[in-house]
Amino acid sequence: MNVAIIGASGYTGLELIKILINHPKFNITYIANSTGNENVQDLHPCLAGVIDVEVSKADASEVAKVADLAFLALPHKTSMFFAKELLDLGVKVVDLSADYRLELETYEKHYCPHEDKEHIKDSVYGLPEYYKNDLKDAKLVANPGCYPTASLLALLPFVDYIQEDSQIFIDAKSGVSGAGKKLSEVAHFVNLNENHHAYNPFKHRHMPEIEEKVKKVKNKEFQINFVPHLLPITRGMLVSVFATLKEEIDVEKVLEDAYKDSEFVRVRKTPVDLKSTAGTNFCDIFVSRNGKALFINSSIDNLLRGASSQAVVNANIMCGYEEGEGIPKIAYVP
Amino acid sequence: MNVAIIGASGYTGLELIKILINHPKFNITYIANSTGNENVQDLHPCLAGVIDVEVSKADASEVAKVADLAFLALPHKTSMFFAKELLDLGVKVVDLSADYRLELETYEKHYCPHEDKEHIKDSVYGLPEYYKNDLKDAKLVANPGCYPTASLLALLPFVDYIQEDSQIFIDAKSGVSGAGKKLSEVAHFVNLNENHHAYNPFKHRHMPEIEEKVKKVKNKEFQINFVPHLLPITRGMLVSVFATLKEEIDVEKVLEDAYKDSEFVRVRKTPVDLKSTAGTNFCDIFVSRNGKALFINSSIDNLLRGASSQAVVNANIMCGYEEGEGIPKIAYVP
Amino acid sequence: MNVAIIGASGYTGLELIKILINHPKFNITYIANSTGNENVQDLHPCLAGVIDVEVSKADASEVAKVADLAFLALPHKTSMFFAKELLDLGVKVVDLSADYRLELETYEKHYCPHEDKEHIKDSVYGLPEYYKNDLKDAKLVANPGCYPTASLLALLPFVDYIQEDSQIFIDAKSGVSGAGKKLSEVAHFVNLNENHHAYNPFKHRHMPEIEEKVKKVKNKEFQINFVPHLLPITRGMLVSVFATLKEEIDVEKVLEDAYKDSEFVRVRKTPVDLKSTAGTNFCDIFVSRNGKALFINSSIDNLLRGASSQAVVNANIMCGYEEGEGIPKIAYVP
Amino acid sequence: MNVAIIGASGYTGLELIKILINHPKFNITYIANSTGNENVQDLHPCLAGVIDVEVSKADASEVAKVADLAFLALPHKTSMFFAKELLDLGVKVVDLSADYRLELETYEKHYCPHEDKEHIKDSVYGLPEYYKNDLKDAKLVANPGCYPTASLLALLPFVDYIQEDSQIFIDAKSGVSGAGKKLSEVAHFVNLNENHHAYNPFKHRHMPEIEEKVKKVKNKEFQINFVPHLLPITRGMLVSVFATLKEEIDVEKVLEDAYKDSEFVRVRKTPVDLKSTAGTNFCDIFVSRNGKALFINSSIDNLLRGASSQAVVNANIMCGYEEGEGIPKIAYVP
Repeated sequence: MNVAIIGASGYTGLELIKILINHPKFNITYIANSTGNENVQDLHPCLAGVIDVEVSKADASEVAKVADLAFLALPHKTSMFFAKELLDLGVKVVDLSADYRLELETYEKHYCPHEDKEHIKDSVYGLPEYYKNDLKDAKLVANPGCYPTASLLALLPFVDYIQEDSQIFIDAKSGVSGAGKKLSEVAHFVNLNENHHAYNPFKHRHMPEIEEKVKKVKNKEFQINFVPHLLPITRGMLVSVFATLKEEIDVEKVLEDAYKDSEFVRVRKTPVDLKSTAGTNFCDIFVSRNGKALFINSSIDNLLRGASSQAVVNANIMCGYEEGEGIPKIAYVP
Repeated sequence: MNVAIIGASGYTGLELIKILINHPKFNITYIANSTGNENVQDLHPCLAGVIDVEVSKADASEVAKVADLAFLALPHKTSMFFAKELLDLGVKVVDLSADYRLELETYEKHYCPHEDKEHIKDSVYGLPEYYKNDLKDAKLVANPGCYPTASLLALLPFVDYIQEDSQIFIDAKSGVSGAGKKLSEVAHFVNLNENHHAYNPFKHRHMPEIEEKVKKVKNKEFQINFVPHLLPITRGMLVSVFATLKEEIDVEKVLEDAYKDSEFVRVRKTPVDLKSTAGTNFCDIFVSRNGKALFINSSIDNLLRGASSQAVVNANIMCGYEEGEGIPKIAYVP
Repeated sequence: MNVAIIGASGYTGLELIKILINHPKFNITYIANSTGNENVQDLHPCLAGVIDVEVSKADASEVAKVADLAFLALPHKTSMFFAKELLDLGVKVVDLSADYRLELETYEKHYCPHEDKEHIKDSVYGLPEYYKNDLKDAKLVANPGCYPTASLLALLPFVDYIQEDSQIFIDAKSGVSGAGKKLSEVAHFVNLNENHHAYNPFKHRHMPEIEEKVKKVKNKEFQINFVPHLLPITRGMLVSVFATLKEEIDVEKVLEDAYKDSEFVRVRKTPVDLKSTAGTNFCDIFVSRNGKALFINSSIDNLLRGASSQAVVNANIMCGYEEGEGIPKIAYVP
Repeated sequence: MNVAIIGASGYTGLELIKILINHPKFNITYIANSTGNENVQDLHPCLAGVIDVEVSKADASEVAKVADLAFLALPHKTSMFFAKELLDLGVKVVDLSADYRLELETYEKHYCPHEDKEHIKDSVYGLPEYYKNDLKDAKLVANPGCYPTASLLALLPFVDYIQEDSQIFIDAKSGVSGAGKKLSEVAHFVNLNENHHAYNPFKHRHMPEIEEKVKKVKNKEFQINFVPHLLPITRGMLVSVFATLKEEIDVEKVLEDAYKDSEFVRVRKTPVDLKSTAGTNFCDIFVSRNGKALFINSSIDNLLRGASSQAVVNANIMCGYEEGEGIPKIAYVP
């Protein structure tokens, strides 16, 4: 199937290119960014000797001529305009931005007014382990945020066992590639190197995303208290979920049962690390209990499982291919 | 005052030497390790051109001849034998090991049988902000663990406001110098670089130390659920304490009131980072609230405030000097 | 074709597994290390969910039953015993150790007495750009050292233009994965992090390897003055070659002509970096001139082009496959 | 003596503040940057609890009222205007920019037209080991560049022994703090982390500075071929000088003789590293020989010996104090 990548300049755009080049079913026919007129090797020198194509200035009608599915690796708000046009032209969309991840009301509260109220209500949340059936028929998939991916995969199996009036705390740590390619104080080498710190505690926009999906999938309302941190590394994400159980259950069994059929979730017997998932679509999860105190610990590659490879898994399911077709299981970094 | 450093080979021994060389009141008269017969510059090449003395094979009676106070930077269990001898010879002791930190019963449960039951009951826990009066007359000070230092300074001001039946979670992250100079899989560069992971969740021996001190200082019993992590950096420690408040209090005010007279605790308006405390004895603390959910966030240098500089602060107080005499407030790394 | 990997525990063994799993022509039938009796996932946890086989205790006659070609990722000296046995049993060998890289005399001078004098004289040096014809019929290929690979690819095109009586200097920098998986002072995180230093200046055993190959390929004798350094990173190798030209030639043209038909050498217009070659088999080269002073600058992934992926290229050529069959051109790290 | 720091916002300005706060003879009376109206703790949060003063908008006549000596940590070209004004008002100047380092002609060729032709000819080059006598009476000291400091201290002892028609090559590596506080592609964390590369080979403006000083100090003309690199670390600088000797001399003895009376140069028996000099004013040097091939290897902290602490050493000498007064010999980072 012919596919387009819109938003090729950033880190997730590059990862999409790298995965799709070797994909046995998808064929890249269109690569675009906001300016065009540049060889993809000038954008990403690591692609010299690998792929030699011109990057176009993004244009939905051109996409519709050459592709059946488009990956949008665009900033929030820019994405919804493209998605709308593409969907109206009959092109399937996997959107890596936040634009279609939330209920309209939640979105407008935390982001901005939405310009595509028609499609947002039909979008499918692209967390394959929990939305596989819906994904099969989807025209528009909203690829989850990186933090929600790692947090929900850890938390969802345990939601039914958590004390109803208790607080859930998530202490999450990400490599700085999640902050993107744009220069920033936070990503200035001298500022981050040998350093580590939280940012936006209780105020990150992935917090309502996690809360909403817990409610939708499990029909339970919890206050999620989310504190993200930056690690002095390029990629990888480690999430610690802390909660209070109703009773002292066998947490390992709960976790194993939840993912016994999942190709891309690995239940681990020891605390997870970033190395084992870096460069892959795997989510590794470990769980431990201290009386009723619960600790669930997950690890993903923030740019792959947290963005680009999960997007291709979603596309695989939308197109009726095997979930794992062309998806990296061994390292694919940097 | 003449002082001895026993255990000069490790990281905390080196930091003690670096601080005491420039201290206006203390004069190093004896440096020892387990082998002796080596110039201190061969142990620590960075000391060439700075200090040129022979390292002795540790011997308590020799210490007693030349020093009034000894810093012990020794492994747990080795330390209690030296401390006992030195105290019996009239030498004051600041012990950086765990040997005198806990009640006898707690110690023997989590470490090993204790060989100095006489002195353990008189030791003072060297967290200056909470034990200053006791420190003034102490003969034996047990320098706190690095994690307990950062955790207790964050947690103690809030203990009275936390829901009594609720869980307290501590997600702590340390640079790998805390694991010491000995070669280990965990500290092998390839294993840790670009990596991050928890270790010993709910099982680290600093967990009972925190629980015990919360009880002793605040007379409240809480289950502390402690999960330490390794950061791919040399030094620094970031602690996140998560708890549930009884009611929605003004947490900033509680924190400011607690430390308004503390020379070495800085209350911050934004999440703390490691850079600002690295190389100093400062503990930086930030607090935030989401309804009743509480997040307290502290940062220290694990080898200084978490070990060597706090030891020298304790010695200052024991000897009637100013708390901050000779203590690094600006970077002192590596 | 069925292949065996002997020496699966180390870093190059792991890279071989990762490449060969996805190789369209080679089929792994045997994986061994010195102990055996272990699942490959216990050796390398990143392989969970990817490959699930028992690692054997290495045994040449077992190899001969199931494989036509063996990759040896063994220490120097151990390797020659296996190679000899395998060759006598009719199994082709790609040896990643130093055992067959040098003339017998050079080898015995810099390493140790050689136990397989029969095969060493027929081994082919596996630097594909310069030995492709010999590789086609080879039974035994000696995979080059990592430093010689990067140094020779940079230097060889210019040898004829360098002043005959002048010194050639090579300042080379490697990530620490080159030092292997074994714990060592040099690879202790605290020692290497935020650090950088030379080691074995003028005494590294890759120095005579470079000298010998310059002489064999170009029939010119030069004193090569080689100084390797360790970088505080996991992988990647940057080589600077400095030499004095006979006259002020067009060095860019010389370089471009040398590699215009090479699939895995990319001539760059700006100084090369490690990111662009990390995870691939590419060697990037840049050249610059200041009057008669010459600077040639090459970059490779020390574990791939410097070891495992180059080994698979050599195997491809030995077996009549395309040189680039199954070889990583986009990142394949860690 | 009262001193001013002009240019307090950058990394070298911060290091000056940190050194001068604890200096026993100098008293900071004025701190300025280009905007003023800000507490120094807002510029540098690590200074909270250490120093609490307002930063002024830089004004030479205000400086003259409160200080006898000013440190200028300003960009090239800005510096000469301030220096001129200050000198005319009778204030001594230590200038950390390039504005007074070179002969007028060399400066204008490599930088820009000079606006203070009067003082440039009387400035003293602040490399204390080679200019101590001139520094004693200096009104204006040009603090050397970081690369020239490390390169000249390594090279100068050997200049008389190098073959006269031969090329000298310098392969230099710096931590990225040398590139300053301003955001840049090169210092974006994702770009530099796990990376390493040369920049401006044969074109860096420190190259003519080294050439000129070799000629001035030793009266020998050599072509210096200088290639700088960026290391994925915050601070530290390692320099490799490669040259061809006239004959096979005892290079260790030459080096030891050159620096036997130098407080801040340490001759090492093994290759130098960055850890040992980080945070200090030391320059460590190692030398090795391979026949006539010479390798000299030096290490400094680029922000201290390469800038701020060397500036204070120069000020000490200008003011008749001991060279090492208040100068860090043990770590002072970050």
